[in-house]
Amino acid sequence: MSDIWLSSLITNTPQEGFDLATKMSRVGVKVTQPSAEIRDKLRHDYAENADSLVAASQVIAINFQTVAAANNYWRP
Amino acid sequence: MSDIWLSSLITNTPQEGFDLATKMSRVGVKVTQPSAEIRDKLRHDYAENADSLVAASQVIAINFQTVAAANNYWRP
Amino acid sequence: MSDIWLSSLITNTPQEGFDLATKMSRVGVKVTQPSAEIRDKLRHDYAENADSLVAASQVIAINFQTVAAANNYWRP
Amino acid sequence: MSDIWLSSLITNTPQEGFDLATKMSRVGVKVTQPSAEIRDKLRHDYAENADSLVAASQVIAINFQTVAAANNYWRP
Amino acid sequence: MSDIWLSSLITNTPQEGFDLATKMSRVGVKVTQPSAEIRDKLRHDYAENADSLVAASQVIAINFQTVAAANNYWRP
Amino acid sequence: MSDIWLSSLITNTPQEGFDLATKMSRVGVKVTQPSAEIRDKLRHDYAENADSLVAASQVIAINFQTVAAANNYWRP
Repeated sequence: MSDIWLSSLITNTPQEGFDLATKMSRVGVKVTQPSAEIRDKLRHDYAENADSLVAASQVIAINFQTVAAANNYWRP
Repeated sequence: MSDIWLSSLITNTPQEGFDLATKMSRVGVKVTQPSAEIRDKLRHDYAENADSLVAASQVIAINFQTVAAANNYWRP
Repeated sequence: MSDIWLSSLITNTPQEGFDLATKMSRVGVKVTQPSAEIRDKLRHDYAENADSLVAASQVIAINFQTVAAANNYWRP
Repeated sequence: MSDIWLSSLITNTPQEGFDLATKMSRVGVKVTQPSAEIRDKLRHDYAENADSLVAASQVIAINFQTVAAANNYWRP
Repeated sequence: MSDIWLSSLITNTPQEGFDLATKMSRVGVKVTQPSAEIRDKLRHDYAENADSLVAASQVIAINFQTVAAANNYWRP
Repeated sequence: MSDIWLSSLITNTPQEGFDLATKMSRVGVKVTQPSAEIRDKLRHDYAENADSLVAASQVIAINFQTVAAANNYWRP
């Protein structure tokens, strides 16, 4: 994780913010399981389990709260 | 997910905000499982499991917090 | 869900706000499982499982955070 | 739940606020399972399961966030 | 729980705030299971289950949000 | 836990803030299971279970909310 992957929380649009929240959620997994090979293997089962998918959506929702606040909710 | 599906967090009413939060929760699932076919299959079992339904409601609640804050809670 | 069920987050008292949070939590279930018949059937098992009840209480707590903030916490 | 049990979120001390958060968490259970008899029965198993106890503590923590904000964190 | 254990949310340092959040999480367990003997027994199994430990860490994180906000994040 | 490990929530960049949130999540585990030996053993199984990894990512997301707020979201 020595690369710079999170230089700013500011995005141009809510949707880019949602994408960033998704990325943050995945990095949150990566810091516990650094092996891309193992993560790929796990993703397989994972992506076919409804409860797991909802859990993943929840982590994105939590990270999106942070990104949205950082961007003052992209208010016009 | 290249379509624009989240151009703004601003809605006219709380209820439209709740609908948006529901949509965000579903997209949060979609980014992990892009296949509509698999999602449809999973939804079947899912929608008949009480704990899963409550988990889904929780993700909507978290996303609604964000949407509501963006809209200053639609205060009169 | 075409009826208007959430026209405002403003309530007269904290307790009415808690009731609204309960309603929001239930609608969050309803959007995933629209059949009242299936929901009634599920509620039966559900309401006799302690972990499920605590999960339901958690969703209410999250929705109440939103309602309470909208009402400036009903401060005197 | 026709009694008035939540007339205010304001408390004199943080600890009274924590007690209120505990009460709110229990009412969140009660609205789904109104029978005191069934709740008592469930509590028995529940209170001897570590994961259940942590889940209960989490709901209290979420409700306490709301109560603490309402009280401006009881800042001196 | 008649002792005064939470007289203030204000702490000198973030780390003391984290310790307070840990204490709050434990009291959240204690209010549901008042018997120290049973809690000790449960802690044994609990502390050797990874998912349980992460769940405990989550409750601390939620309580720490409250304590940190109360202290204005100990900003210099 | 007598060492000073959390002297400030302020970091130079969002990414350093994310690293701090990760650290806080791990310390949240450590306070319940102080034995490094047992934690290492548990981490093994844990890191190969997708749901556990998502749960870990969620705790990081919650702690990151706190760190990001403390840093005013590193707004330029």
